[in-house]
Amino acid sequence: MTQEYVAGTREGHVDFINTNDLERDAQQVIPGPSYGYIQSGAGDLYTYQQNEIAFNHKLIVPHVLCDVEHPDTSYVFQGTHLTAPIIMAPVAAHKLAHARGEQASAQGVAEFGTIYTASSFASCSLEEIREAAGPQAPQWFQLYMSKDSGINERIIDMAEANGAQAIVLTADATVGGNRETDKRTGFTFPVGLPIVQEYQKGVGQTMAAVYGSAKQKLSPSDVEFIVSHSKLPVYVKGVQDAEDVQRSLESGAQGIWVTNHGGRQLDGGPAAFDSLQIVAEAVNGRAPIVFDSGVRRGQHVFKALASGADLVAIGRPVIYGLALGGATGTRQVFEFFKKELEMVMQLAGTQTIDDVHHTKLRNNLYI
Amino acid sequence: MTQEYVAGTREGHVDFINTNDLERDAQQVIPGPSYGYIQSGAGDLYTYQQNEIAFNHKLIVPHVLCDVEHPDTSYVFQGTHLTAPIIMAPVAAHKLAHARGEQASAQGVAEFGTIYTASSFASCSLEEIREAAGPQAPQWFQLYMSKDSGINERIIDMAEANGAQAIVLTADATVGGNRETDKRTGFTFPVGLPIVQEYQKGVGQTMAAVYGSAKQKLSPSDVEFIVSHSKLPVYVKGVQDAEDVQRSLESGAQGIWVTNHGGRQLDGGPAAFDSLQIVAEAVNGRAPIVFDSGVRRGQHVFKALASGADLVAIGRPVIYGLALGGATGTRQVFEFFKKELEMVMQLAGTQTIDDVHHTKLRNNLYI
Amino acid sequence: MTQEYVAGTREGHVDFINTNDLERDAQQVIPGPSYGYIQSGAGDLYTYQQNEIAFNHKLIVPHVLCDVEHPDTSYVFQGTHLTAPIIMAPVAAHKLAHARGEQASAQGVAEFGTIYTASSFASCSLEEIREAAGPQAPQWFQLYMSKDSGINERIIDMAEANGAQAIVLTADATVGGNRETDKRTGFTFPVGLPIVQEYQKGVGQTMAAVYGSAKQKLSPSDVEFIVSHSKLPVYVKGVQDAEDVQRSLESGAQGIWVTNHGGRQLDGGPAAFDSLQIVAEAVNGRAPIVFDSGVRRGQHVFKALASGADLVAIGRPVIYGLALGGATGTRQVFEFFKKELEMVMQLAGTQTIDDVHHTKLRNNLYI
Amino acid sequence: MTQEYVAGTREGHVDFINTNDLERDAQQVIPGPSYGYIQSGAGDLYTYQQNEIAFNHKLIVPHVLCDVEHPDTSYVFQGTHLTAPIIMAPVAAHKLAHARGEQASAQGVAEFGTIYTASSFASCSLEEIREAAGPQAPQWFQLYMSKDSGINERIIDMAEANGAQAIVLTADATVGGNRETDKRTGFTFPVGLPIVQEYQKGVGQTMAAVYGSAKQKLSPSDVEFIVSHSKLPVYVKGVQDAEDVQRSLESGAQGIWVTNHGGRQLDGGPAAFDSLQIVAEAVNGRAPIVFDSGVRRGQHVFKALASGADLVAIGRPVIYGLALGGATGTRQVFEFFKKELEMVMQLAGTQTIDDVHHTKLRNNLYI
Repeated sequence: MTQEYVAGTREGHVDFINTNDLERDAQQVIPGPSYGYIQSGAGDLYTYQQNEIAFNHKLIVPHVLCDVEHPDTSYVFQGTHLTAPIIMAPVAAHKLAHARGEQASAQGVAEFGTIYTASSFASCSLEEIREAAGPQAPQWFQLYMSKDSGINERIIDMAEANGAQAIVLTADATVGGNRETDKRTGFTFPVGLPIVQEYQKGVGQTMAAVYGSAKQKLSPSDVEFIVSHSKLPVYVKGVQDAEDVQRSLESGAQGIWVTNHGGRQLDGGPAAFDSLQIVAEAVNGRAPIVFDSGVRRGQHVFKALASGADLVAIGRPVIYGLALGGATGTRQVFEFFKKELEMVMQLAGTQTIDDVHHTKLRNNLYI
Repeated sequence: MTQEYVAGTREGHVDFINTNDLERDAQQVIPGPSYGYIQSGAGDLYTYQQNEIAFNHKLIVPHVLCDVEHPDTSYVFQGTHLTAPIIMAPVAAHKLAHARGEQASAQGVAEFGTIYTASSFASCSLEEIREAAGPQAPQWFQLYMSKDSGINERIIDMAEANGAQAIVLTADATVGGNRETDKRTGFTFPVGLPIVQEYQKGVGQTMAAVYGSAKQKLSPSDVEFIVSHSKLPVYVKGVQDAEDVQRSLESGAQGIWVTNHGGRQLDGGPAAFDSLQIVAEAVNGRAPIVFDSGVRRGQHVFKALASGADLVAIGRPVIYGLALGGATGTRQVFEFFKKELEMVMQLAGTQTIDDVHHTKLRNNLYI
Repeated sequence: MTQEYVAGTREGHVDFINTNDLERDAQQVIPGPSYGYIQSGAGDLYTYQQNEIAFNHKLIVPHVLCDVEHPDTSYVFQGTHLTAPIIMAPVAAHKLAHARGEQASAQGVAEFGTIYTASSFASCSLEEIREAAGPQAPQWFQLYMSKDSGINERIIDMAEANGAQAIVLTADATVGGNRETDKRTGFTFPVGLPIVQEYQKGVGQTMAAVYGSAKQKLSPSDVEFIVSHSKLPVYVKGVQDAEDVQRSLESGAQGIWVTNHGGRQLDGGPAAFDSLQIVAEAVNGRAPIVFDSGVRRGQHVFKALASGADLVAIGRPVIYGLALGGATGTRQVFEFFKKELEMVMQLAGTQTIDDVHHTKLRNNLYI
Repeated sequence: MTQEYVAGTREGHVDFINTNDLERDAQQVIPGPSYGYIQSGAGDLYTYQQNEIAFNHKLIVPHVLCDVEHPDTSYVFQGTHLTAPIIMAPVAAHKLAHARGEQASAQGVAEFGTIYTASSFASCSLEEIREAAGPQAPQWFQLYMSKDSGINERIIDMAEANGAQAIVLTADATVGGNRETDKRTGFTFPVGLPIVQEYQKGVGQTMAAVYGSAKQKLSPSDVEFIVSHSKLPVYVKGVQDAEDVQRSLESGAQGIWVTNHGGRQLDGGPAAFDSLQIVAEAVNGRAPIVFDSGVRRGQHVFKALASGADLVAIGRPVIYGLALGGATGTRQVFEFFKKELEMVMQLAGTQTIDDVHHTKLRNNLYI
């Protein structure tokens, strides 16, 4: 089955004006079931759609006469210099979109100059990803835990050995959401998942089977397990409420990742951006916050940063860029977000990312 | 007319991914006027549509690190073990949808393992329904009262004799709502209504005529009449406000059924799920609450349970499953809800139905 | 031009299920520009559309066990027995819709048994209208004032002589609204306006010209003028705010008519039903309130009555019924509203119109 | 490239009923990329669309018996008599729409009798604009600052020499917004920009390049610079928040211009009309307020005036009228707004613009 799967191999400049163009054009080059797996969301798509709509709940007020010129998106996050506080979200199996898979995307992200979060369900090995990005590129590792502690230790060790600077524990996907598109297309993974090969080969498996092979029964003790085994900071990914912040930090997590998994898990829940407001208040500066879900514009990045996020992660649009242009397309997607962010920063009267963090958004009274 | 009516006879597995599929496919196998009778609602369909939309008024916040695995939907309701707190709502004349009518649906519900509420306007006799379900299956009886007390006594006795464990007095349908689809198709009942044959034969009658032959002038004394005549607990069905809770409980009712009759009666009224919040507060634990109207997803069941419902009843989707696959299709619909509910429970961090009952939903501020 | 205008002459039973049917079918029988004049509203139709949507701002809660049967819509208004508190709104030039014009509509309204409000811009004389309705039929007269006091006195005298029981001073149409449909179709009145012939013949005139020939500069002194000249009670029509209530009552008006002229005058203003809440509070029982604008269902009548209206007036739907079936069609429209109102009263647990007046609607929190 | 560009030359009466007609018809006569440049907005058009929708956030309550007739839109603004408080907004390069460019529009505006705001990016010289309008016509000058102070002084001097009565400093366009339509059509200016020719020729340049050649780093000191160099009052254009009001007035500005640049700059920000409420409260009578963005109806003018605006500026609709009918078409657009405003004033019970300023709008509770 792996042999037969044909993803694109194109490397080079992609023509696009916004991320809608990317989504539309990527549909032409990614095989149907894979495209459906990447693009769609859970259930009736309510939460999926709200993820993007919710950014209108807060408004950026343009400010004038603020003495701003050539605003600077660069950001030093815990000692690491980033071109912008925009990072790569973990996404499974990049080879669904491009033959070089994570090697191409990691290369593009490194060229742009930001953090790459490698998924446990990557279709390249961590060695390959590190090699493509180069030794200095900042990389994080996203962990889906096995039911076997020994396996988990070996995977974490592998991440450390390949230069990961943080472990991101995905806690909101202990079962697969009801992704009906996958059921309709009969999607199964056409590529292998080398990082987790000790517990899941991937090829020919449904997403539900893949999640089923991972550990469902996550608890604070799992965070403690990772913290005790690894010197790396642990981020809990999937936090949307104050009690989850508390549970995460008390168990030793050093970072909070607000997301609803891109609307792919629980339909009927809140938009991630709305949850961000609640989580940021609960965290109250005690840990860095990463945000993803629904980010399609520079203004979305701005609004997330002004709502408490330290870093904003991008998923689907990057995969579309990867499909269309390999490492180059990947890099272009980040450049698109950076360029839009610069424009928004200028018009909002903010010279630096720190200024953005201190910007007060206006509540939209007319929703 | 009865002889000519041709409902489906198919028994077996139904392919569907969600209840929208069921509705669409059932339209192909149920004769047009009958399908219209089953599917549609009252007036401009405002309340009908709000029934489903209203579930978005409350949001399920995903919770992580809650030590949950294989959540358990089973529920013991007043000593009866149920596979899930999801029961069969009373629906008239199942023979509109399938030749075996209530015999097939009662069989399927019994196989799943939950309460079957037989309608007074069933197209099978209570003996046939009991026989199909087996002697142990939990069954309730929904009562449309006759204007004649003697008839009412005989119908209640018949229900008791056939093992009913509760009497559900429908109080919100003392006239038929303005179901314009039925007027356009010229719908009349093509099948008989054996349970109420003393006051209404059914065949060839409009729904308005059927309701007209039942008792309009319902009052607390009718509840008292049933309570005095029968040892069974009485549920008042159609309660949407605090004063109706009070009137029901004071007249001896032991259960409250929140519904707006699936949006089939009064257009321009509240969504049933919005009323549930108000009713649950008014009941304040004094009686069990059953909820129906608009439930199409496991997340809807979860939200109703978290809003005060003890049991959630399903109507139209079950009839579609019955039409498409007889007893098997009926059972599959319940399995669908159970499976979605399990997924939601896992992602919401709830191991048991009791946990669900104690879950706090988030108000949606952005409606 | 008058000779050439061909309106329908059909008299007899009309088949329709709701007022949308009437609007659709009437379009087939009323000449295009006239239909446009009757059907449409002002500007971008925002207020026009909100008139109907606004009824969803308040919800009728179904109530059960209320001991209601065969609810009674009859109503005694200031000594006059009405079949229902639903009356005919003043509408110009019924001959646009039917060759018999106001003679047919007045006959139909009299047969139903309620108040007929004759427009100053009627296409029949008051003598003809009175004759068609019979001597006992309750009739009111709607006044567009001339700039000439003498003419006004003669018109008022004519109304009294023909048995009018009230004078309704339209105060919200001192210029025509921007009815763009009329501009597009080039609508001019194809029929005469006999009642106001002393200041406006009508034939060949645009609506703007007709309004321009009437008095623009209305003030409390105009109410005082009518009050001093006539023994009849004066209703001020077009009241939507507390200060207008005060100004009207202080100038001697004995009734308040809440309307926005069916969304035909000022676009960008409130829905009439929303204004009703404010006006009813301001009136506080000091005068009867008539309501119109957007009423298309029995539930709308119920909601207006429960919000402070004593009488609810119907315009466009009656004209459609008139066009389709003459006096019979007119009567049927009122019967439609009565029948829907009865159904709503039954389901809301209200036996009498007085019960409806005392019903508390539920605020819709989810608009 | 200039030679080849063919804009219309038609001069004369335009048939239209509302500004939607103008937009539709102008698309037929303005070359595609130019039309796209004029018509469209930034990003996903959220803010662009909200600009017009937002007028529904406030409602005009019709008032009756107010003794109003032939309401008077004339307005004396700081000693200058205007036919109505409706002025011409600065718009770049009118030659995109009509061969005579600003000469035609300035003539039409002068004929109507109101203020013409000439853009720095006009396609005619200030001498030509003055000549077309005549020596008495009130004109303001909108300034895009150069990075070179000497150039700025010379441009300001030129404006004064040509009779400008105010300098409007556009502060909200220090970079171009993401106008994706221009990117898709490949729009570049086909005409020259004579006023700013010292720093930008215009021909063949993208809008981004044009903005890039102007000064980005605007600050209060730039206002102070203009104030110190010129005796004319300075308006800061692009103010949407209280802090910007403060910054502007403290730096010597004598007027505040509320706008979001017609939704062409920052998508994801507030509707300009919503910002007007906030700005008016912050200004609190200390300076005149001009408002633009989204004004398409007389009711919009009324609502802006009742919300604190002293003057309301119109942009796109005037350019459409210019394209369709030259000076005559331009004048007609202002007459359209005046006529609608008169109608609204009559129906709202307001005789004068001062009455309008004192009108209290009703909050729309049902958005």
